[in-house]
Amino acid sequence: MLDLSLPLGLRDLTPDHSAHLAELSARLQEVFRTFRYRRVLLPTLERLEVVERGLSPAALAGVLKFVEPGSGEVVAIRPDITPQIARLYAARPDALPDPARLCYDGPVLRAREARAGRPREVYQAGVELLGAGGPAADAEALVVLRRALDRVGLSHAVLEAGHARFAEAVLSAAGLRAGARERAMDALSRKDEAALGALAREARGPSRSREALPALATLYGEGALARARRVARAVPAAGGPLGELESALRLARRRGVGAVDVDLGEVRGLGYYTGITFAGYAPGAGSAVASGGRYDGLLARFGRPGPAIGFAVDLEFATQALERRSGRRAAAGGARR
Amino acid sequence: MLDLSLPLGLRDLTPDHSAHLAELSARLQEVFRTFRYRRVLLPTLERLEVVERGLSPAALAGVLKFVEPGSGEVVAIRPDITPQIARLYAARPDALPDPARLCYDGPVLRAREARAGRPREVYQAGVELLGAGGPAADAEALVVLRRALDRVGLSHAVLEAGHARFAEAVLSAAGLRAGARERAMDALSRKDEAALGALAREARGPSRSREALPALATLYGEGALARARRVARAVPAAGGPLGELESALRLARRRGVGAVDVDLGEVRGLGYYTGITFAGYAPGAGSAVASGGRYDGLLARFGRPGPAIGFAVDLEFATQALERRSGRRAAAGGARR
Repeated sequence: MLDLSLPLGLRDLTPDHSAHLAELSARLQEVFRTFRYRRVLLPTLERLEVVERGLSPAALAGVLKFVEPGSGEVVAIRPDITPQIARLYAARPDALPDPARLCYDGPVLRAREARAGRPREVYQAGVELLGAGGPAADAEALVVLRRALDRVGLSHAVLEAGHARFAEAVLSAAGLRAGARERAMDALSRKDEAALGALAREARGPSRSREALPALATLYGEGALARARRVARAVPAAGGPLGELESALRLARRRGVGAVDVDLGEVRGLGYYTGITFAGYAPGAGSAVASGGRYDGLLARFGRPGPAIGFAVDLEFATQALERRSGRRAAAGGARR
Repeated sequence: MLDLSLPLGLRDLTPDHSAHLAELSARLQEVFRTFRYRRVLLPTLERLEVVERGLSPAALAGVLKFVEPGSGEVVAIRPDITPQIARLYAARPDALPDPARLCYDGPVLRAREARAGRPREVYQAGVELLGAGGPAADAEALVVLRRALDRVGLSHAVLEAGHARFAEAVLSAAGLRAGARERAMDALSRKDEAALGALAREARGPSRSREALPALATLYGEGALARARRVARAVPAAGGPLGELESALRLARRRGVGAVDVDLGEVRGLGYYTGITFAGYAPGAGSAVASGGRYDGLLARFGRPGPAIGFAVDLEFATQALERRSGRRAAAGGARR
C-alpha cells in the first residue's frame, strides 16, 4: 500500500481553502495591476550564493538547499521572493524601467517550520517598488497595501507602521554594556519598561539617552508618535527615522489611507529592512496578513545600488481572516432569521 | 563580484514576457472557473515514492530529486502536477466531490532539459476531471480546452485528437517479430508507410491484421476517420478505441467544438494515457500549446481506482503563439498606414 503522505512538514490545503487562496491571489494581482505593477515569474531554484546574499544568517539556516545531481551546483529552493527580484533588477537593467514596479505570486519554502505549527511552504503575493526612495515611494507602498486589503474584503484589517532604525538608534545611544543588548531586545519584545529601565541604569551612554531607553517599550497605541518625538529629542539619531515615518504617514493620509497605528519599539525579525516597516493585522489570522518595508541596502548586495520598498501578503493568513469574517457574517445572518 | 546567474538550465523570463504568461494564466483560470473547476494549490515537493507511482520510467529519469537534510526523506520537486492531483484525490476523498473538477496553475521542474533548448522549468495551467469516464467526460475536456483557447485569443489554434490504445491494438494484432516493434514505432513516428509495410510482411499475425499495419501511417488529415474505420474492421481490438474517439468527437461537436483533426498513428510519449488524447497547435509556438487525454489507470496506482481525464496548457508555448499573432497584427496594421 502506497503511503500517500507528503514530505515531513508539508501539507495539502483542502480544495475549498485552496480555492479561497487562489481567488484571493487573483484579486490581489488585479489591484497591483491597477497601480501599474507588472507581474514577474521567478524560478523555483536559485544558486545558494544568490540566496545567501539576500538573507540574514538566521534566515539562511532555514533555507532548503541541496546539490544538483547533474551540475554539482549548490542550489536552494527559494525561501523568499524579494531577493530574487533584487537579483533580477541587478541582472536585467535593460529589461526593466527605472523605477521598476513589479509584483509576484507564488510559494516559498523553508527547510523546516520556523515555529511549531507554522507551515514550511507559504503562499505569498506581493509588490516591490525598486529604484525609488523617499516619502512618496513609502506612501505608495502603504496606499497599495491599504487598497489591496480593502478590495479583497479585509477593510477591517489594521495597518501598523514603524521604522527599522528607530529602536536601533536608541539602543545604540544608551551605551549598553556587553551582553546587555540581547537582554534589552528581549525586554523590548515583551514591552517590559521596568527591565529596560534597569538596563538603562547600568548603561554608559549620556543620561538623556539612557533615560530614553525604557520609553521604547511605550511607543505604540494612542499618542505613540508624541512619545516618540520626545525620545527623538533625547536621542538625535532617532530623529531621522522618525521623520521618515511621519512623512510617509502624512503623504499616505493625503492619498486616502485611513488610520495607521504606530509601533516604534519593534527590533526583531526585521531582516533586510532599513527604513519604514509596516504590517496588516486582522482577527482570525495566525499572524500578520501582510508585512513589508523599505530595504535600501539589498539591491547594492546584488551589484546595482538603489532604494527599494515592498510588501507581501501572506495568502494563508489573509484567507484565515476572510474565512473568519464570512463565518461571522453567516452566523449573524443565521441568527437574524 | 557576485555571479547573478541562475542554476544551470534555468532562466529568467523578461518582465514583459512574464507578465504575458501571468495574464494568460489568469484568463485561463477564469475560463476553468466558468466550467466549475476549482483551483487547487499543490506543494512544490512530493516524496519520491509518490512521484514514481505516477510516471513512466523514462519520465522518472528527468525528475529532480534529493535527500532532505532534516528528515532524510528522498523528495522530488514536482515534475508534473497530474500525479499530485491523483494523490490528492486518493488521499482526501472526504474533501472532494465525486466526480471532482479541479484546476491548477504553476511551474513544474525537470532535472535537465528534456530536449536541447527546452526549458527545465515549465509553467502550466490545466484541469482534471476525476471520477468521470465515458464520452460525456471526454467531450467536456475538449469543450473546456476549445473555450479556453478561444477566450485567450487562440481561436486559430487547431485541435488534434487521437487515442492512446488504437495504434497499440494494431501493432499487437500484426504479430511483429522480436525487435521489430521498436522499428515499427520508429517508422510510425516518421509516418513511413513503406517501412511499416516491410515489417508487416515479416510479421506473424493474421494477414488482415498485418495488412492494416502500414495504414497506421495514413491515419491523419482529410478522411482519417474513414481510413481508421477500415483498419478497425481488420483489427477488431482497434474498434473500441476508435468508437471512444468518435463518440467524444460527436458529443464535442454538438457542444459547439468546431473542427478537430484526427491523428490515430501516434504512439510515443503518451505516458499514463489510456483513452482519447488531444492537443492544441498554433503557429509561433515551439510545440503544442496544450495537451491532454484520458488516464483511467493512474488513480488506481494511488489506491482509489477511477476514470479521469485532463489537459494542461503550456503557458510559455501559448504565449509564444499569442505574441506571434499580436506581432503579425501590429505588422499588418503598420503596413496599412
